[in-house]
Amino acid sequence: MRLLGEWLESNSRKSGSRLVLAADVGGPFESRVGRATALVRALAGRVVAVKVNWHLLLPYGVLGLAELAAACREEGLPLIADMKLNDIGSTDVEAARTLFSNGFDAVIANPFVGYEGAMADLIAESRRREKGVILLVYMSHAGAGEGYGLTVGGAPLYAAFARRTREWGADGAVVSARSPSVIREVRALLGEGQVILSPGVGAQGGDAREALLAGADYLIVGRSIVEADDPVRAADALIRSSFAFTPP
Amino acid sequence: MRLLGEWLESNSRKSGSRLVLAADVGGPFESRVGRATALVRALAGRVVAVKVNWHLLLPYGVLGLAELAAACREEGLPLIADMKLNDIGSTDVEAARTLFSNGFDAVIANPFVGYEGAMADLIAESRRREKGVILLVYMSHAGAGEGYGLTVGGAPLYAAFARRTREWGADGAVVSARSPSVIREVRALLGEGQVILSPGVGAQGGDAREALLAGADYLIVGRSIVEADDPVRAADALIRSSFAFTPP
Repeated sequence: MRLLGEWLESNSRKSGSRLVLAADVGGPFESRVGRATALVRALAGRVVAVKVNWHLLLPYGVLGLAELAAACREEGLPLIADMKLNDIGSTDVEAARTLFSNGFDAVIANPFVGYEGAMADLIAESRRREKGVILLVYMSHAGAGEGYGLTVGGAPLYAAFARRTREWGADGAVVSARSPSVIREVRALLGEGQVILSPGVGAQGGDAREALLAGADYLIVGRSIVEADDPVRAADALIRSSFAFTPP
Repeated sequence: MRLLGEWLESNSRKSGSRLVLAADVGGPFESRVGRATALVRALAGRVVAVKVNWHLLLPYGVLGLAELAAACREEGLPLIADMKLNDIGSTDVEAARTLFSNGFDAVIANPFVGYEGAMADLIAESRRREKGVILLVYMSHAGAGEGYGLTVGGAPLYAAFARRTREWGADGAVVSARSPSVIREVRALLGEGQVILSPGVGAQGGDAREALLAGADYLIVGRSIVEADDPVRAADALIRSSFAFTPP
């Protein structure tokens, strides 16, 4: 078992939730970090981790997200940078160092970029720091067939990405909740302790329960919570409509 | 002809240079923006554009790079965000808005993510704002064969990416300077006015002159200039060793 997977599992046992908050807060730049931090405080105990994307990372950078990172640390929630990193090794490592030295616990990367000279360096750096790397294995927007769905050597590329996730020893995979059959395939290809995080529930049309039944470990939920009038109620409804997680 | 291509060409005619500065400044966070800004001031007239990657974007975010963006604007240099964007459309557009409202003129994206629901949205947003989108067509690190070099439908994936660049109407393509033969292939597939930017000269081993002869329009140079004792001399040497550009 890997550090990140254990942390998520432990949080899930405590909270009975399998939700990862995608803190994609829009609106005026002045208030985004404060609003995201308030969301983390309000939802602690209802989510197992917090993921940030360009809504927060791009305007402020990680140095501008110290308040949010502190809230995650205090609430015991891993903070995941959804950068979909896909650069050469030296640049990926530069990004990882900036993240991991400033309160981030894991990064999402794109295995498309290959191992030698790219992901190998990122994964080694993450291991050294005891931080997480999650690989983007399948997305399901309309154009995804031009990438993840390409047939390479008789098999879909996402299957190769799932194999890379196992062989490279990443902490887990991101697979769209809108494609339960792909979740099932990826689940069968991953190793023990490697988690599947599934975005696409809610605004994007995926079904929470189906994704979990197919083998997803966690649901990444953004707009359905962030843009709800009452984010706590929205999270509770999502927890109820997915699994009632029973600690053994 | 597209806005970004015309801008680069105009700068190149004025300066006799085909260099794009990759302002990958490392070291203590406190001094990176100041050092990058000083580099831009010192190299204005010797480079045609400035590209920033995670060294600057990730710690500070675009709001923290206002000084650098102002220097680029004052020196007439387009500022390019090398994010290798590869997300769904709504997230890509969110990133583009943040960039384009804060002094950035173009973004680099990964065509792997496909058109519908992804790049279509980014390119439309960029057109609306009269900003640039450059697609990452070929990288040449050791593991690149697991992505760009995959054979799909009997042809290498980078050829499909070059065709996407033309069909989608992007401003240009990034192709590694270390692969002149790929530059030649991509050149033949791109449309009129679409530029090729080639990184990989210097520290990564690519030959400037060969890349330009193969069809690259501009060389993206980072470490060879940024880490030189005298960046201005290093840039001048690179300009001399590549093309003596002669305005017609």
